[in-house]
Amino acid sequence: MKKAAIYGASGYTGLELIRILLNHSNVELTAVTSRRFDGLTVAEVFPALSGLTSLKYQNATPQKIASVCDVIFLALPHGVSMDIAPHFVGAGKKVIDLSADYRLRDVKEYESWYVPHKSSSLLSEAVYGLPELYRKQIKKSVLVANPGCYPTSIILGLAPALKDKFLEVSSIIANSASGASGAGREPQIGSLFCEVENGFKAYKVGKHRHTPEIEQELRILAGKKFNITFTPHLLPVKRGILSTIYATLGENISLERLHEAYCSFYAEEKFVRICPLGEYPNISSVCGSNYCDIGVCIDKRTNRAIIVVAVDNLIKGAAGQAVQNMNIMYGFDEDAGLCNVPLYP
Amino acid sequence: MKKAAIYGASGYTGLELIRILLNHSNVELTAVTSRRFDGLTVAEVFPALSGLTSLKYQNATPQKIASVCDVIFLALPHGVSMDIAPHFVGAGKKVIDLSADYRLRDVKEYESWYVPHKSSSLLSEAVYGLPELYRKQIKKSVLVANPGCYPTSIILGLAPALKDKFLEVSSIIANSASGASGAGREPQIGSLFCEVENGFKAYKVGKHRHTPEIEQELRILAGKKFNITFTPHLLPVKRGILSTIYATLGENISLERLHEAYCSFYAEEKFVRICPLGEYPNISSVCGSNYCDIGVCIDKRTNRAIIVVAVDNLIKGAAGQAVQNMNIMYGFDEDAGLCNVPLYP
Amino acid sequence: MKKAAIYGASGYTGLELIRILLNHSNVELTAVTSRRFDGLTVAEVFPALSGLTSLKYQNATPQKIASVCDVIFLALPHGVSMDIAPHFVGAGKKVIDLSADYRLRDVKEYESWYVPHKSSSLLSEAVYGLPELYRKQIKKSVLVANPGCYPTSIILGLAPALKDKFLEVSSIIANSASGASGAGREPQIGSLFCEVENGFKAYKVGKHRHTPEIEQELRILAGKKFNITFTPHLLPVKRGILSTIYATLGENISLERLHEAYCSFYAEEKFVRICPLGEYPNISSVCGSNYCDIGVCIDKRTNRAIIVVAVDNLIKGAAGQAVQNMNIMYGFDEDAGLCNVPLYP
Amino acid sequence: MKKAAIYGASGYTGLELIRILLNHSNVELTAVTSRRFDGLTVAEVFPALSGLTSLKYQNATPQKIASVCDVIFLALPHGVSMDIAPHFVGAGKKVIDLSADYRLRDVKEYESWYVPHKSSSLLSEAVYGLPELYRKQIKKSVLVANPGCYPTSIILGLAPALKDKFLEVSSIIANSASGASGAGREPQIGSLFCEVENGFKAYKVGKHRHTPEIEQELRILAGKKFNITFTPHLLPVKRGILSTIYATLGENISLERLHEAYCSFYAEEKFVRICPLGEYPNISSVCGSNYCDIGVCIDKRTNRAIIVVAVDNLIKGAAGQAVQNMNIMYGFDEDAGLCNVPLYP
Repeated sequence: MKKAAIYGASGYTGLELIRILLNHSNVELTAVTSRRFDGLTVAEVFPALSGLTSLKYQNATPQKIASVCDVIFLALPHGVSMDIAPHFVGAGKKVIDLSADYRLRDVKEYESWYVPHKSSSLLSEAVYGLPELYRKQIKKSVLVANPGCYPTSIILGLAPALKDKFLEVSSIIANSASGASGAGREPQIGSLFCEVENGFKAYKVGKHRHTPEIEQELRILAGKKFNITFTPHLLPVKRGILSTIYATLGENISLERLHEAYCSFYAEEKFVRICPLGEYPNISSVCGSNYCDIGVCIDKRTNRAIIVVAVDNLIKGAAGQAVQNMNIMYGFDEDAGLCNVPLYP
Repeated sequence: MKKAAIYGASGYTGLELIRILLNHSNVELTAVTSRRFDGLTVAEVFPALSGLTSLKYQNATPQKIASVCDVIFLALPHGVSMDIAPHFVGAGKKVIDLSADYRLRDVKEYESWYVPHKSSSLLSEAVYGLPELYRKQIKKSVLVANPGCYPTSIILGLAPALKDKFLEVSSIIANSASGASGAGREPQIGSLFCEVENGFKAYKVGKHRHTPEIEQELRILAGKKFNITFTPHLLPVKRGILSTIYATLGENISLERLHEAYCSFYAEEKFVRICPLGEYPNISSVCGSNYCDIGVCIDKRTNRAIIVVAVDNLIKGAAGQAVQNMNIMYGFDEDAGLCNVPLYP
Repeated sequence: MKKAAIYGASGYTGLELIRILLNHSNVELTAVTSRRFDGLTVAEVFPALSGLTSLKYQNATPQKIASVCDVIFLALPHGVSMDIAPHFVGAGKKVIDLSADYRLRDVKEYESWYVPHKSSSLLSEAVYGLPELYRKQIKKSVLVANPGCYPTSIILGLAPALKDKFLEVSSIIANSASGASGAGREPQIGSLFCEVENGFKAYKVGKHRHTPEIEQELRILAGKKFNITFTPHLLPVKRGILSTIYATLGENISLERLHEAYCSFYAEEKFVRICPLGEYPNISSVCGSNYCDIGVCIDKRTNRAIIVVAVDNLIKGAAGQAVQNMNIMYGFDEDAGLCNVPLYP
Repeated sequence: MKKAAIYGASGYTGLELIRILLNHSNVELTAVTSRRFDGLTVAEVFPALSGLTSLKYQNATPQKIASVCDVIFLALPHGVSMDIAPHFVGAGKKVIDLSADYRLRDVKEYESWYVPHKSSSLLSEAVYGLPELYRKQIKKSVLVANPGCYPTSIILGLAPALKDKFLEVSSIIANSASGASGAGREPQIGSLFCEVENGFKAYKVGKHRHTPEIEQELRILAGKKFNITFTPHLLPVKRGILSTIYATLGENISLERLHEAYCSFYAEEKFVRICPLGEYPNISSVCGSNYCDIGVCIDKRTNRAIIVVAVDNLIKGAAGQAVQNMNIMYGFDEDAGLCNVPLYP
């Protein structure tokens, strides 16, 4: 039984970590922090969790939290995580950071999209926490940089095709749409019900910060440097990301061969499901679970592959993947705490 | 390890039973039936369950299904269940019927609201499957009549107050609202997305078939005969029932006393949560779980109690309660398979 | 051609006034005020209105606005309207106040639910702006207190039955549900998409500020003093209020007689539609329009009337009714600018 | 005053035509047909229209309808329109067909995507009813083929860039998402609330029938033959289409030049709004109106244009555009009946 804590547990990602860890049989959740909710119980802030935990939010230092946990989840904004993570690494704790701070291996790239880096010396210890690609490294790591939600969907969606050199990489376009929980729980006009409901729009067109993270991993998979186009959209749902990815195929790639490449790449993966030929995923079939569903198609008229990927942004796109990483780090069953069947309908 | 089967598993209630039973550690799901989907796998019909089960829908006789199960869940329309249940009872199986067919103790009452009864001899064996009221009888029964979704919310919402004689029973009004999954998965215009979304309406005003079921149980609790007014509404959500119940109070009942009565009535109940004073439930805090949340208020200006109750109509209002009943019948942990934390947000 | 201005036009009610007035053939919209958006065009704040107006938000004094308008709509919070209205009344302008400040005739009642009143001398000039009840007085008034959204639905829903003495007034219970636009456009956690979507809850149970306003008008209609129970709920929709109202009937009132009373009471009213017997309104059938739809039923088993009423809270419940009042004040066609067909689906 | 009729007026498109024509000051709606609802009033089928029209659905022959109208709108399924249209054309009526039957100039292309054509002799008389491109021809035509909803968004979104030869046409990818009203009002499982709500999925990937229509018009604009990739998705909203269109730019096209090309191409168009630089449309800003909003961006890292387009699929994507075409055919104000301000929020 390991002791886990969550630093910054008052947002939707933190809440989702609590939800999952409360049902995890190898872990005891010992502390959750929040400045805003200091002194309140989790159930007071989130009545959905009433009766499930008596934990109280604390506004506590990393030192204090480190003394009561073996593993820490950081559900903090980028720029803040890198202030906090070194304390836990230094104290010999396992750290799973859900911010962007340790995802980019190139400090300059990070700084050109985010803010000045204050913890670059730790970057070399960080492992990009996508289990399907980095399971071995995660197993040995002490600092996991948990992937972004959009990157999870796009990297998993392209990995088999890139590995097999099926695609003209410069043609890759990822058109993604996310539920509103991706924008967090801060009150702002753009996140109000009346602004989101019945709406659909693109945002941060050509400049979303997940772009360099996606490119970093796609380049590693393809073994060469290139840029992609990535356009996020805001869906009027709470949860779920669907990424529809386009890329020109090399010559003579049949749909059967493409589909087979995906099936075999993910054959041993518990949380990736490849749709049967001719079928495509729906976010409503993954939400509430750690699944990533992938459907593949070839548009023969233009010789393009169309890859459609669905994840729950809060689970496989954040908290679920973080717990999956923890499971790997400790040698627990990889699906411990993550067996939820999608909540459909 | 008991073997369970579901007769009529192609609708939303059947699907929810599958979802729950797949994660139940004391039960193996051995068969699911459907006429419409005969020969298809569950995953072909519901891709959300892909990778979780290889079960196929069968169009099979009760006899055939009885040979592969210890306990049978009937997720059939009223009028059909009573054709099927006797075969299973006769074969010595435990039966949990989710239709209305065995809920009303008075055959004439049943027939005046539904259809002629074809299995009235079994009525005396049936137990109304509301664990919080009938746990002992459920434990010994072979045929459980699983309560309706609206009745579950209203009966649980009134039981403590009726038991303590706090209310003028002739003043009871239950104003309820349900998500669209309550209408089932049959294609009909009124259930289309474009008809339900952004809408809210009352339906079957003054004549919903759950009325006699609610009254039967409230009368038992109050020890006298009376009628109630019950008005269902259709919410633009998939899941969830909220019942707002009004009743004139007897003299000198304070809010503290009322609240305390609820807390103590349900003190040992795992799935009923009483909100703190001044707080009221939200369906979004129970959906995805077997919880029933209850908030109580007194409108001092009119001396009325206002009781607000939330359940997930597919879980505590149907499939979850059915599994809870099965757990009781077999002496399993009462929350086996039912530990899901509400999916919030 | 009259000149109209809106004081406090940056919220949803102000926006709705702009929408309606832009299509009003007897009125020119000359000014809109906002502190927050001072200097921005309406189209910059609300791209939906792009191309329809070149108006800019001003942070202007009442004096300045009074110089450019004949009629002023105040879409301000309660407590602020009463600071502003006297300036316009003093300047000889017609004032339509959408706040609660001039709705209650009894200052003490106002102060016990709201804040100290700073403009009580104007109360005697104010007319409660429900055209179906006060058309003559509105025609002559210079200060209209535009009704609240919930009160509009409940008062219109009960007026015919109260006028005809059909009801035991002490038994009246109004169970209402509103879309999220009723909470305004201020960023707050409770109004976030992820908090509202898929949810349904009661709020301010037994203590909503619309209670005294409803009671004031019902008492006038009934000719006696009594209290009601009123419970508001929050619907996961943008627009729409549905009120389901319960009251015990006097003796020997048939459904036909009740229905006929409603049909004849509203026979000349353009914006009130009585549903055919056996049918009930849906908010989706009125949203986008100034209609108030009413359905009536008798629950014979308990001798209760059940009245169901639907309005668009932003139109008949606020901005539409305000324009209807203006039309009456100026002798325009009462439906000028208000001919929109409900946006269904 | 012209007399208009609608053939096939029981679906969402037919209903939207009724909504619009009821408020059109140059037109009287004289007849609406439906097999299913024969004999019912429009208000009985759609209570939202109660009080606005006393029209009854008829199951009438084209001959009978032709005798009471000057212009006929055909809101029929493809394959049926071509049975009906010739009767009206033969009777000297103006015909606006909302099906696909007269949109494709190449009969073989039509037959390869749809069914055998039974009215190909009329194709040469048909004009593709996109006013922004074919206003002059529409003015003189007797048979307008009203564009599909997706094609409207994509063709309007690409016209300026194609006319100015800014794009490598073989790189065009259109990623579109539509509200559920696009699937019509036929009861089918996939259109149920519980299947659509909270979901998002791609459908008919690589094989949607709007593909040849889009390509036909884009090829005319570009002056050459090429194929595009088009992927439709299903949004959990009632109304609205958002198309996000990608294409590689020729050399040295600046964002300012691109934006200016759009502004000037549509400078005289009442119903096309170009977003300011850096802003992108939201379906919630056009729904309820005949607007088409367009935002343009250049992804400099990949030298791709990203064009985002929003329309209300039932209005500019169907019924509104049909009325706009009628207005042009008769020389009415082009926005007659179409002045609705978008219903936001």
